[in-house]
Amino acid sequence: MRQKSFLYETVSGQLREQIRRGSYVPGEKLPSVRQLSRIFDVSINTILQCFRQLEAEGLIKTYARSGVFVVRPKTPAPLSTVTPLFPMLPVEVSLSERILNFMEPHIDQSIVPLGIALPAQELMPVNQVLQTYRDVTRAAPQEAWGYTHPHGYDRLNHQLARRSLNYPVPIAEQDIVVTNGCMEAMELALRAVTRPGNTVAIESPTYYGALIVLEVMGRRALQIPTIPGQGISLSALDQALRRGQVDACLFSTNAQNPLGFTMANRQKQELVQLLARHQVPMIENDIWGDTVFQGPALPAKAFDEEGMVIYCNSFSKSLMPGLRLGWTAPGRFHRRILELKQVSNITTATPPQMLMSRLLESGFYQRHLQKLRGSLRSQTARMVELIRAHFPSGTQVAEPTGGCALWITLPDHIDTEVVFHQALKQRIHIFPGAVFSPGRDHHNCLRINAGGPVTPELEETMARLGELTRRL
Amino acid sequence: MRQKSFLYETVSGQLREQIRRGSYVPGEKLPSVRQLSRIFDVSINTILQCFRQLEAEGLIKTYARSGVFVVRPKTPAPLSTVTPLFPMLPVEVSLSERILNFMEPHIDQSIVPLGIALPAQELMPVNQVLQTYRDVTRAAPQEAWGYTHPHGYDRLNHQLARRSLNYPVPIAEQDIVVTNGCMEAMELALRAVTRPGNTVAIESPTYYGALIVLEVMGRRALQIPTIPGQGISLSALDQALRRGQVDACLFSTNAQNPLGFTMANRQKQELVQLLARHQVPMIENDIWGDTVFQGPALPAKAFDEEGMVIYCNSFSKSLMPGLRLGWTAPGRFHRRILELKQVSNITTATPPQMLMSRLLESGFYQRHLQKLRGSLRSQTARMVELIRAHFPSGTQVAEPTGGCALWITLPDHIDTEVVFHQALKQRIHIFPGAVFSPGRDHHNCLRINAGGPVTPELEETMARLGELTRRL
Repeated sequence: MRQKSFLYETVSGQLREQIRRGSYVPGEKLPSVRQLSRIFDVSINTILQCFRQLEAEGLIKTYARSGVFVVRPKTPAPLSTVTPLFPMLPVEVSLSERILNFMEPHIDQSIVPLGIALPAQELMPVNQVLQTYRDVTRAAPQEAWGYTHPHGYDRLNHQLARRSLNYPVPIAEQDIVVTNGCMEAMELALRAVTRPGNTVAIESPTYYGALIVLEVMGRRALQIPTIPGQGISLSALDQALRRGQVDACLFSTNAQNPLGFTMANRQKQELVQLLARHQVPMIENDIWGDTVFQGPALPAKAFDEEGMVIYCNSFSKSLMPGLRLGWTAPGRFHRRILELKQVSNITTATPPQMLMSRLLESGFYQRHLQKLRGSLRSQTARMVELIRAHFPSGTQVAEPTGGCALWITLPDHIDTEVVFHQALKQRIHIFPGAVFSPGRDHHNCLRINAGGPVTPELEETMARLGELTRRL
Repeated sequence: MRQKSFLYETVSGQLREQIRRGSYVPGEKLPSVRQLSRIFDVSINTILQCFRQLEAEGLIKTYARSGVFVVRPKTPAPLSTVTPLFPMLPVEVSLSERILNFMEPHIDQSIVPLGIALPAQELMPVNQVLQTYRDVTRAAPQEAWGYTHPHGYDRLNHQLARRSLNYPVPIAEQDIVVTNGCMEAMELALRAVTRPGNTVAIESPTYYGALIVLEVMGRRALQIPTIPGQGISLSALDQALRRGQVDACLFSTNAQNPLGFTMANRQKQELVQLLARHQVPMIENDIWGDTVFQGPALPAKAFDEEGMVIYCNSFSKSLMPGLRLGWTAPGRFHRRILELKQVSNITTATPPQMLMSRLLESGFYQRHLQKLRGSLRSQTARMVELIRAHFPSGTQVAEPTGGCALWITLPDHIDTEVVFHQALKQRIHIFPGAVFSPGRDHHNCLRINAGGPVTPELEETMARLGELTRRL
């Protein structure tokens, strides 16, 4: 008797905890009496006793012939007052937390998405690509099921190498390692060539994701100034290299985010030669390279005779973010990066690799890029017009050479964190300039996503945003 | 004239290099004259001039109306004599390289796969699962396209939390982070709780993948003895903890690979309490937990009141390796692991998460597991019989409680690296015992995969393998 009562208390307690933690939410059906008796290895009577108790407590309700359902509690505890599940560890307050706060509104579908830089889904051939996804898994189920080589699916690597056909120094197929997106490629590269405490040169301003990686991995950042319309200042970089301040570089040379510049080929070549002279590796983030308006641009990697450039790219911006498919060509760091990839997650999932090799083989991806470049070019041009029309006098906006990020410099007295909060009240999401550098420079700048078609609603939103900044 | 000749030499050189590096292999068609003239931004005449040169060199051949094809070279250079693309960096010779050598034969389809521990594809509902994969992307294309939250796809996390319904301390949905397989979960965990030079306690013998991770990440390993049929020796672990030797543990408590033991619940609870007393975190690799023959076994995590256990699991062994889908419940280390996940690859791909949430919601996965457990139980039992029938007297084989790894201890004078090489000559792949510990103990042990149905051919293979060991 004692034993039985103990059992039923235990099982009730666990069900109560599951409901409290949200594993079963109000309106959801619990497993049947029979299933629960199997799961907990107790008698059916014990489960019925639990149900009576939890029903008396108002947590569940039994409906004859339908089953037992979780009931909405009368006074739901707001999430923020829930006590933490475990004692929390002390962590440093960091820039990445600030950045994550600025990213938060992205999740709300009702907010105009001018924050995250990403081409709108409506520019993408969603249904055709997913149909091909279905085709490749139907055509080769056995292949889709298993692991690929750690370096990737051979047919994909073959296609990726071919992209370098016109590089003065082409990328060899056996140099390529397929990754879970460009971020994984960059992170593996940083782990391969730097250690905590090392210094990584970055452009100023740069992509905030790069800053988060550096911070979380305990690397220091050294900002290299950029020259409007030209790119990274090679003389400033040269100085830093001569001083021995730089352990590695993390740069974009094509449609750089957020500035939108594409460096000239001669500048790219000089950059690579400069780094080779100092034997400092460069991680090249070429994620926007495929969107350069005037067609495929050479990356700095194309001039990499010594294998010092770790090239990183993905299909997340140019096609499908949810695929999480990227690649790296690490040159002389190939062996270490392949090793880190294997211990990180063995290999990249097979079906996405089959999909992309098909889309590259058929020329579908290349045709899609031509359309995408055209759309992004006209959208960014129109958005620049709207900014010039509505923003306060003294506002400057860089005309991008690719991608969909617009970098806006407002008059010096305007703090764009204020703009961020005021815009958010009007359900508009933008990114303040301060998150694009570790020193929180660029306080009067902001970045706007021009990834969506310019509808009358968007024109009206831009007018409101302009008015808001004019009032400051 | 000079300029033109220079151009054509450059383009020819690049095409020649592409062919040499294998971007275009013999029999493959080159892009059209028109396409190449666009790619290289030169005239059609220049491309035709290149073609004439490369054809004269015997590298390509033009077929009227079909196009230009790469020709098989008369004296192909064997891959091994190709000069390295870049100057190589010095690296330490390591156990992981040895292990990778032992894994190599896995790739050859004509070899009997007794090496890698993995249930055979024929035990898996390949077509039904891939059909569901197609269904979920068809039903919700927009959702499949984009990123999920860094912690994962909410419906999947919900289902994963529910698996802990009968745990004394259930896993909360908000504690879960979805990963690219179990390996990523373990690697993020190791990075979260240890630093290079730290010491990680492991079972002896243990999964060689754990040893590779520790080595590549520069962590030291401390072997904790195991008691046959019981699992990790808690008294030995206690001693090591008292001496302050252990910074973290990496253990499997269910169907441990390679020994096949499942620890008793009371032992699991004691293990967790012991670690909590010493405030040492434990990474739990539960990848074989779903295959425990007598039904779902509790992991040590089920007793984790203090959040010191970082639970890691995936669907790679129990369903589909190529999905690369796993998860972790990191307890008090949740925040750091989520941070590392975000900088590693932002989030896990969306379609596999949609697939697995559907298979869990519908009960398909659970029904599949029941069948899989039955198959593995009877296969391993039959393989144990075959070993007892054919291997030399004095051979011991542990009867596994789950999974499909069989750990065989041969008479002491037998070196299983010799067995490995001799078996390979007979086109049979096994794993020698030496790769299951950092000290290369277990020289007379070997691990055999019992993941495939026991056909007459397999029976014959086992007889040959037994004969081979008897002759030593």
